[in-house]
Amino acid sequence: MESLTQPPPVFAFSRRIRKTPYEKRVMEQAPKSMTIYNSTPLMTVFRSPQEDYEHLCEHVQIWDVSCERQAEIAGDDALRLVELITPRDISKCKIGQCMYAPLVDENGGIVNDPVLLRLGKQRFWLSTADSDVLLWVKGIAYGIGYYTSIQDPDVSPLAIQGPRADDLMADLLGEEIRQLPFFRFVRESLAGTSFYISRSGWSGQGGFEIYLEEYRKGLDLWDCIWEAGQKYNIRAGCPNSIDRVERGLLSYGNDMTLNENPYECGLDRFISEDKKAECMSSVALKEIRDRGITHKLVYLLIQGEPLTTPREACTVNDESGVARGCLTSIAHSIRFGGNIAFATVETQFSIPGQRLFIEMGSDKLLKATVMSKLKE
Amino acid sequence: MESLTQPPPVFAFSRRIRKTPYEKRVMEQAPKSMTIYNSTPLMTVFRSPQEDYEHLCEHVQIWDVSCERQAEIAGDDALRLVELITPRDISKCKIGQCMYAPLVDENGGIVNDPVLLRLGKQRFWLSTADSDVLLWVKGIAYGIGYYTSIQDPDVSPLAIQGPRADDLMADLLGEEIRQLPFFRFVRESLAGTSFYISRSGWSGQGGFEIYLEEYRKGLDLWDCIWEAGQKYNIRAGCPNSIDRVERGLLSYGNDMTLNENPYECGLDRFISEDKKAECMSSVALKEIRDRGITHKLVYLLIQGEPLTTPREACTVNDESGVARGCLTSIAHSIRFGGNIAFATVETQFSIPGQRLFIEMGSDKLLKATVMSKLKE
Repeated sequence: MESLTQPPPVFAFSRRIRKTPYEKRVMEQAPKSMTIYNSTPLMTVFRSPQEDYEHLCEHVQIWDVSCERQAEIAGDDALRLVELITPRDISKCKIGQCMYAPLVDENGGIVNDPVLLRLGKQRFWLSTADSDVLLWVKGIAYGIGYYTSIQDPDVSPLAIQGPRADDLMADLLGEEIRQLPFFRFVRESLAGTSFYISRSGWSGQGGFEIYLEEYRKGLDLWDCIWEAGQKYNIRAGCPNSIDRVERGLLSYGNDMTLNENPYECGLDRFISEDKKAECMSSVALKEIRDRGITHKLVYLLIQGEPLTTPREACTVNDESGVARGCLTSIAHSIRFGGNIAFATVETQFSIPGQRLFIEMGSDKLLKATVMSKLKE
Repeated sequence: MESLTQPPPVFAFSRRIRKTPYEKRVMEQAPKSMTIYNSTPLMTVFRSPQEDYEHLCEHVQIWDVSCERQAEIAGDDALRLVELITPRDISKCKIGQCMYAPLVDENGGIVNDPVLLRLGKQRFWLSTADSDVLLWVKGIAYGIGYYTSIQDPDVSPLAIQGPRADDLMADLLGEEIRQLPFFRFVRESLAGTSFYISRSGWSGQGGFEIYLEEYRKGLDLWDCIWEAGQKYNIRAGCPNSIDRVERGLLSYGNDMTLNENPYECGLDRFISEDKKAECMSSVALKEIRDRGITHKLVYLLIQGEPLTTPREACTVNDESGVARGCLTSIAHSIRFGGNIAFATVETQFSIPGQRLFIEMGSDKLLKATVMSKLKE
């Protein structure tokens, strides 16, 4: 915010903002900052981005990610409907498997980038990023006349992230949980409630996500994990800006929107060009492939003092001062020796080594370099 | 929040939360609290709910309501599509007219309750409450194959509310603006930008809404109105909880959701039973009419100390302690001599004069009485 001479406004909660089953425990851990994601509170910092990051990379954290709302699609046409809304080939997804499945509209625009869970032959959960997938899918199903039931089930995900997540969950659920492959899920129970648990999560440090279905068991579940986690130095945490940018995890609404297509965002590998099922984005995506993209999401290394997330997209200029794109997310990474960021730039300026200049604030110009994918 | 021994988390802004064109000026006025509405900041209190209320009832306020996002529906099938999604008869809506048009799905559930603006024969804006109408409408139009263009235009509404709104806008736009009837709009210009201005707004005190289309002119527009408003004691403001509950203005997400139907929420008069155009909710709404509703939204007067908005729906009990519904919004009204609230209760407990008991907090029971509509 521009004006910081007075204290910033506090967040006013109301019924319109969903209360999570873990909220009481989260607040007891005195988070420093929060946001709203799918009409649900999501913490963003507990101690500092750097302190939270260091702890996440070394120990284990418990994250209230109830904001990952599930859109449940079930019924005779469930698979047809899911195939229609994502360019990824879902026929290959087994029951018990997760798939990262960008949802793309008839113009090639990205609607959301959920993790899809296949619960049954004709039953799916879309674990959504921050946009109202439920209403979009309801609209499509109504319009076509598909035989499906589309619901917003009362599911509140809890993530256990960090290198000690396996030790902690093995103590609680038994040693077999260590064998759960990445993006697979099983049914387990704890604290008197049974749930799906997947090896997944929005960090680069590994771990699990528990999909709590019995809201009233939330505090018991949290307490049970919290207590067992004491020997592993567990802390309350949340998706960490440094970790996610270092690992190249895109944030829907920040790094990609309905105005971007998956090719521009480097999501090519999630588009099954030979997909057999009907897909609403296939014509648009083929056109985009044929004519080539004009913009591309790149990683940048930016010189200078540590920077924080910009309030809005900052302009990215070439050496002549001509605007060539905009910066979308930023974090200060000690590991990479500077500020690292995502930016959308014209394709001819997206080659690793390209020098660019970021307009930050009124008249500050920061030097930046396009990097090859950070996580490689 | 339960735990208030440490300062509450501050709100972390990012690109995912839209920056409004007026944000700089709003923040200069040091608002006390805020919320997020349609992924956009909306202030909730500037001084105190009571101080803001008293000023609103006597003077004029300028409100940043950029969060009222417009879903634009245009093209050959625009009217057909709009008729499909609302039970209200839109054929009667003239160009230059606004209509409050609840959007209702095929099950009778309320998706949103926008104000519709008819800009042309086949061009509409839906000025939306807090749910993603754009994606829902896009889904329906794609599914059916309607010939429409559905966009999220860059429109940032600014409301001028309060008894001196007419004097202020007459000074700026000329005396004719006083003649603009309720829920009509015209094209005007100010501060070098032209816009639609309607006689409307989410208060009971009257006023206007300006639909700014040139984002970059936001501060000029604000400053121009602010300066002219000095003689009318203008202040920055926002939708006020006391005013809205006193006037019976429902809040989508608080008082009604996808789980409620328009009959339960007392929106009967916006359902055109004899509507000729095809409407996706007509079968479901006829069924609901035929079998009768089980729950109804009522106004309550609650005894005791001033209460504030509950974090979640509080249970409403009958005299025997049996749960009969839930309380959804609350405000302390000096005018009505107590706390006034909206609650959804079983229909047999919805008759004015009915005594009820509100479960507030752990073991506090508050006496309440069902009232006839407060604004009558």
